[in-house]
Amino acid sequence: MSGSIGIGLLGYGTVGAAVARALTSNATLIAAQAGAAVSLRRVLVRDASHPRALPPGAELTDDPAALLDDPGIGVVVEAMGGERPAFDYIQRALHAGKHVVTANKEVMAKHGPEALAHAAEHGVSLRFEASVGGGIPIIGPLLRDLAANELTAVNAIINGTTNYMLTRMARDGLGYAEALRRAQELGYAEPEPSSDVQGHDAAYKLAILASLAFRTRVHADDVYREGIERLDAADFRYAAELGYVVKLLAAGRRVGGGVQVRVHPAFLPAAHPLASVSGVLNAVELEGDLVGWAMFQGPGAGPGPTASAIVGDVIEVVRCAASGTAPPPPPSLDRGLRLESIDDLETQYYLRLRAADRPGVMAAIAHVLGARAVSLASVIQKEPARDDGTAEIVITTHTAREKAVRRAVEEMEALDAVLEVSNLVRVAGQVV
Amino acid sequence: MSGSIGIGLLGYGTVGAAVARALTSNATLIAAQAGAAVSLRRVLVRDASHPRALPPGAELTDDPAALLDDPGIGVVVEAMGGERPAFDYIQRALHAGKHVVTANKEVMAKHGPEALAHAAEHGVSLRFEASVGGGIPIIGPLLRDLAANELTAVNAIINGTTNYMLTRMARDGLGYAEALRRAQELGYAEPEPSSDVQGHDAAYKLAILASLAFRTRVHADDVYREGIERLDAADFRYAAELGYVVKLLAAGRRVGGGVQVRVHPAFLPAAHPLASVSGVLNAVELEGDLVGWAMFQGPGAGPGPTASAIVGDVIEVVRCAASGTAPPPPPSLDRGLRLESIDDLETQYYLRLRAADRPGVMAAIAHVLGARAVSLASVIQKEPARDDGTAEIVITTHTAREKAVRRAVEEMEALDAVLEVSNLVRVAGQVV
Repeated sequence: MSGSIGIGLLGYGTVGAAVARALTSNATLIAAQAGAAVSLRRVLVRDASHPRALPPGAELTDDPAALLDDPGIGVVVEAMGGERPAFDYIQRALHAGKHVVTANKEVMAKHGPEALAHAAEHGVSLRFEASVGGGIPIIGPLLRDLAANELTAVNAIINGTTNYMLTRMARDGLGYAEALRRAQELGYAEPEPSSDVQGHDAAYKLAILASLAFRTRVHADDVYREGIERLDAADFRYAAELGYVVKLLAAGRRVGGGVQVRVHPAFLPAAHPLASVSGVLNAVELEGDLVGWAMFQGPGAGPGPTASAIVGDVIEVVRCAASGTAPPPPPSLDRGLRLESIDDLETQYYLRLRAADRPGVMAAIAHVLGARAVSLASVIQKEPARDDGTAEIVITTHTAREKAVRRAVEEMEALDAVLEVSNLVRVAGQVV
Repeated sequence: MSGSIGIGLLGYGTVGAAVARALTSNATLIAAQAGAAVSLRRVLVRDASHPRALPPGAELTDDPAALLDDPGIGVVVEAMGGERPAFDYIQRALHAGKHVVTANKEVMAKHGPEALAHAAEHGVSLRFEASVGGGIPIIGPLLRDLAANELTAVNAIINGTTNYMLTRMARDGLGYAEALRRAQELGYAEPEPSSDVQGHDAAYKLAILASLAFRTRVHADDVYREGIERLDAADFRYAAELGYVVKLLAAGRRVGGGVQVRVHPAFLPAAHPLASVSGVLNAVELEGDLVGWAMFQGPGAGPGPTASAIVGDVIEVVRCAASGTAPPPPPSLDRGLRLESIDDLETQYYLRLRAADRPGVMAAIAHVLGARAVSLASVIQKEPARDDGTAEIVITTHTAREKAVRRAVEEMEALDAVLEVSNLVRVAGQVV
C-alpha cells in the first residue's frame, strides 16, 4: 500500500458500494489522473457482523473511531446520508486533517458554510459535487467554469423521484397515489417518501445551488417549499390542454437586491428547456450576464452517477494532496443578500376550482380577481361532469403578485358558490 | 497596479473586446474569486493606429514583442483565432513563463499536446475552455468532474453556424444557398463560410473533445469530415416524413480497441436529445461507464459566452498564481488508441436517388443493396413530379457497414436506370 492514499468510506448502501466498485474497476484510470494510487482501507457500517462483499484490502468496521482516527486514511468519503451523525463524522474527519468528499445534500444545505470553513481552517478539502444532480457536473462548473459570471437565475429539476412520478402522471394519466406506488415498486421512491414528495430533497439541493450561484448563504430553511401531493390527474389534463408540462421546479433568482428561492410544482410551457426532462433525469439551467443561458442534464441519482461525482472529487483531492498543493479556497458566500418573501413573487398562476354551476358564478369569481388586480389570461369551464350541480373551472392569470392571488383565493373560497379551490399552481414563463 | 496581475490580450475582435469589457465590468467579482485583482495592460492588434475604445489603463500595440516580452504581463489571453501566428505567440508566451488562456480550437486541435507539454515544461498553465462550445462548460467537466469515468462516446452539435442554417432549412423550407445567405446577413456565417459549412470548425472541436474524453491524441486531420453543402430542401422534407431531424453531428466513439471520430450531416430521431438543439445553440452529450449519460447545452459562440469561458479560465489561472500553487498537470493523452476508418462504421443510412420511372428499377436497386448485405428499412417513392419520366426514390437501411453501402451506391450509380444518387446521409440511433 505504500505510495497509495488510503480512503475511508462512511456508509455501504448502494452508493457506498458503487464507490468501492469504481475505485477498484477504474483504479488505473484514477491513479493516472490523480497522480497517486488510491486504496479503500476501511468501510464504516452500522453492523459489521453482517457480511458484505468488499474489495480486497478493505476492512469493515462499525466503530467510527477506527476509521476517523486511522492515520492511514487520507480521504474520507461520506455516503451515509442524513444530517446526523454524518455531519459529526465529517467535522471529525476534517478536524483530523483528512480531506472529505461528501454526497450529503442535507448536511451541505444546513451546515455547508461551517463545514467549508472548518476544512479551510485545517488546510484540507471538502468537496460535494455529488450532493446536487447526481452525476451531472454542476458544482464544479458553478465554482470554476462560470466564475466570471454574475449569475441571475438557476432553475432546476433536481428530484428524480418526483420527476418520475410526474412523468407517469402526465403520460399515463395516473393519480398521485398510483404514481407513488409505481415509483416505490421500482425503488425510485422510499417507503417513507416525504423527503422527496414534500420537496425537502429539492430544497436542500436548491439551497446549495443558490448559495454558490449567487455567492450568498442560502440555508435549507430559507427555501419556500411546496410538495407535489396536491397535484391531481385533472391538473395534468388541463396542463396538457393549455400547452404546459407539470414539473417540481426548484428556482432561485436574483430579484432587486435580494434572492428568491422556491421549490414548488409549476406549469412549464411545453417548449421550455426543462419541460422535456423526463423520468429520473435531472437538469439545471443557469442564466448569467456573460454566458446568457446554459443547461446541464443527466441522471440525478443512482449508484453509478453518484459514484462518478464522488470519485471525480476524490481524484481532484488526491491530485492536490499528491502534488503538495494547498486545497482551493472555500467559495465565499458572504454577500448577505436579502431573502425575498414568496408573497412578492410575480408570476402567472393556474387555479382549479369547483363551483356551483349557475349563472353569475363566473362573474363573482372574476370580480374577486379583478378587485385584487389579478387579470385573467384564460378560462376553461367544461360541461358539468357531475350530477351534483357543480362545475370545474380552470383559470390562468396574467402575471400577478403572489400575495394578491392568495388573497383572491381566500376570498373566492368564502363565496357561497365556490365549493373549493382545488389547486393553485404557478406558471413559469419561457426562460430562453 | 501593484498587487494586480497584468493581462495581455491578443486580438481585439468581438471576442477580445468582450473579454476586455468583462474584465472591467465584473472586476470585483473576478478579484474576489481569483484572490487577486487583474488588470488589462496591453492589447495586440494588427494596426494600432486604428482607434479603439479600450478600458482605462490598457494600451494598444501592433508589436507582438511589446506584449509578449512585457514582464508586467502574467497572463496572455489569445483571442485572435487561426493557426498562425496565434500558435507562435502562444508558444512564445509560454516560453516567457506566462500563463496562457486561449479560445483557439484550430491551434488546440492541431498543436494542443505540444503546447500543453510546453506549458508544463515552463511551469505555467495553458487553459482552453473557450475552444469548444463557447460558454458551455465542457473542457472543465471532462478534465475534472467526469475524470473517474471510462468515457465511451461523445456526440455533439458544436457548430452554431451550420446548426442555425439547418434549423432554418427544416423550419422554413429554405434551400442551402438561401439558408447560408440568411446566416451571413445575421453575422452567424462568415463571408467565406467554408470552415463552418465544410465541417472544419466542428472537426477541430471534436478532435479536442475526443482527445480529452478518450485520453488519446486525436488530431484535427484524424476526423472524418463531410460538410452540409449537399443537403437539399428535399432531404429535410423526407427527414420530417420519416421522423428525423437533420443535424451536423460530431461523433466520437470507442470502438473495440480504437476510436472513431467523424463530423457529417446525420438524421437524428426526433426524440434524440440533440434533435431539439436549435439555432445557434450547441450541445455535447457524453456516455461514461459510471455517469451513464450527461448532456451540456448552451450558446456555442458569441462574444459574451466566449468571454465567460475565457475569463473563467483567467480566474482559475490567477487563483493558482496568487496562491503560489503549481498549475495542474496537463491531461495525459498517451493511450495511443487506433483510429478506426469510416469504412468500418456501422450505422443506418438514408439514400435519396433519381431513377427512371419504369418497371424493374426498384428491383434492380434492391438487388444491388441485397448483394452487399445491406437490408432495406423503408422505401418512399412518390408519384413522379417531373415530366422527364424520372422518380425520386428514398431508401433507409437497417444497420450496415459503411464500406458496403458505399460500394452499393457506386454500383447503383452504374445502373442505366439510375440517373444519380443525390445524397447519402447517416442515420443515428437513439443514444439514451
